[in-house]
Amino acid sequence: MSAFAVERRIRFSDCDPAGIVFYPQYFVMFNSVVEDWFNGPLGVGYQHLVVERRVGLPTVRLEAEFKAVSRFGDPVVLTLDVERLGRRSFTLLLRCTGAAGQLRMQMRQVIVTTSLETHQAIDIPPDVQAAIQRRAPPIVPKESP
Amino acid sequence: MSAFAVERRIRFSDCDPAGIVFYPQYFVMFNSVVEDWFNGPLGVGYQHLVVERRVGLPTVRLEAEFKAVSRFGDPVVLTLDVERLGRRSFTLLLRCTGAAGQLRMQMRQVIVTTSLETHQAIDIPPDVQAAIQRRAPPIVPKESP
Amino acid sequence: MSAFAVERRIRFSDCDPAGIVFYPQYFVMFNSVVEDWFNGPLGVGYQHLVVERRVGLPTVRLEAEFKAVSRFGDPVVLTLDVERLGRRSFTLLLRCTGAAGQLRMQMRQVIVTTSLETHQAIDIPPDVQAAIQRRAPPIVPKESP
Amino acid sequence: MSAFAVERRIRFSDCDPAGIVFYPQYFVMFNSVVEDWFNGPLGVGYQHLVVERRVGLPTVRLEAEFKAVSRFGDPVVLTLDVERLGRRSFTLLLRCTGAAGQLRMQMRQVIVTTSLETHQAIDIPPDVQAAIQRRAPPIVPKESP
Repeated sequence: MSAFAVERRIRFSDCDPAGIVFYPQYFVMFNSVVEDWFNGPLGVGYQHLVVERRVGLPTVRLEAEFKAVSRFGDPVVLTLDVERLGRRSFTLLLRCTGAAGQLRMQMRQVIVTTSLETHQAIDIPPDVQAAIQRRAPPIVPKESP
Repeated sequence: MSAFAVERRIRFSDCDPAGIVFYPQYFVMFNSVVEDWFNGPLGVGYQHLVVERRVGLPTVRLEAEFKAVSRFGDPVVLTLDVERLGRRSFTLLLRCTGAAGQLRMQMRQVIVTTSLETHQAIDIPPDVQAAIQRRAPPIVPKESP
Repeated sequence: MSAFAVERRIRFSDCDPAGIVFYPQYFVMFNSVVEDWFNGPLGVGYQHLVVERRVGLPTVRLEAEFKAVSRFGDPVVLTLDVERLGRRSFTLLLRCTGAAGQLRMQMRQVIVTTSLETHQAIDIPPDVQAAIQRRAPPIVPKESP
Repeated sequence: MSAFAVERRIRFSDCDPAGIVFYPQYFVMFNSVVEDWFNGPLGVGYQHLVVERRVGLPTVRLEAEFKAVSRFGDPVVLTLDVERLGRRSFTLLLRCTGAAGQLRMQMRQVIVTTSLETHQAIDIPPDVQAAIQRRAPPIVPKESP
């Protein structure tokens, strides 16, 4: 079972003239999943973290595979797992699955924590580090960086 | 020198509350670069290919690295190179570079040609195959698929 | 009470470098509200209507007023009311309200039903006409067109 | 002749499953036109104005009419005229026209200048006021606000 899952329907606005998800839109969807994961299970307000605490969460590396198309109207499940939790970055495994369990796409995303003043990497704040450890222990043992 | 290059300014609408490019927006930008490359040097109307000839160009694999942030207002250069040209797919190397030549992000994108009736892979149409070979010979020797 | 309401949080991806909703994003949000309204209370599959029955629902007229900013993270309520139900078009009144009931923006949107083959106006399909009449009787008495 | 005009092609990413411009995308396009108008003829750096000088340019009112569809691949001309120049706001008339001169959509947009610290209206900065007056004298005589 995944650490976190969101059900969603593919929207008209997610799709392109071919009637299927315009692929950059997957990344927008997953960005919202990460937001919901912070606000929900992690209990760390995403907006508070970014706006008040000025912690950025930019993506530094991304690998995505698109296995099957998602069509306008399709119900899908978006899942999130933590693969690795480092000192200044963590790796998420994100998947979009169709109603019958068919994998549509999956991506591995490395997110680094930064200061929004300098856009330089900083240590993952201890409360975020602890929340991830507690609610979504990484699949791969902890390591640096 | 790259096979194709487009100059662009980072738009207000490309950026997020951190004032930097919202990363999925890079993929939207590069989608337009691919469109311009087809319409321009390749001489294969992109819209004609997709709408009239019903050939889809979905992405099946993507690897991206984000090296430095691009800020709202930054002038950037987006370049395209063909790394591999197969029978049913090709691999593009796309880069976003800042004014001083600093690499902001780069991605490797595998695009497959499909029938928009079935969403199944088809051979790259001969005119597209020839145009790529002529105008942007792949960096890596041709191989299948 | 409004005919239909959706609760939502303002997403990171909805916002611009000023940290507030990038205004075109309101229209994307409301497009999803209309989709949910069709799929939910109206009981007319939106995707089925557009893709299978080839009925388009383009906007022909729009008036929007922006009263107060919505910030990243804000919980908002999006409401939908039918103001007018004609033969070939209907007018929606859509509002975005903050948690304390403060009106953030409102828009009046005239949607026409079209054939997606010709992009010409057609009569609102009888089942859609009936569903709107039943579930969201227009505020203004029916009139043509 | 319009005060400012930009030629553009309708992009794949601008379009919806009906193969025509997804209407919120017109507002994204016009946002870029306003940006180019500031950076170009007005000679007021848009990014500098927003980021350094912390002047916001939110839309407070919008009226749009959609007359004909724009399809993926269509070359269009986007024009900008100043209809009214007030003390704290100005009204733009923005139009999208097809290759044969056919009006696709037009909108009237009231933009107010605000402080990005308080999101409250402020006087249009004198240099912006003067630049608009000089390069795009309003169609309607000046009045307040």
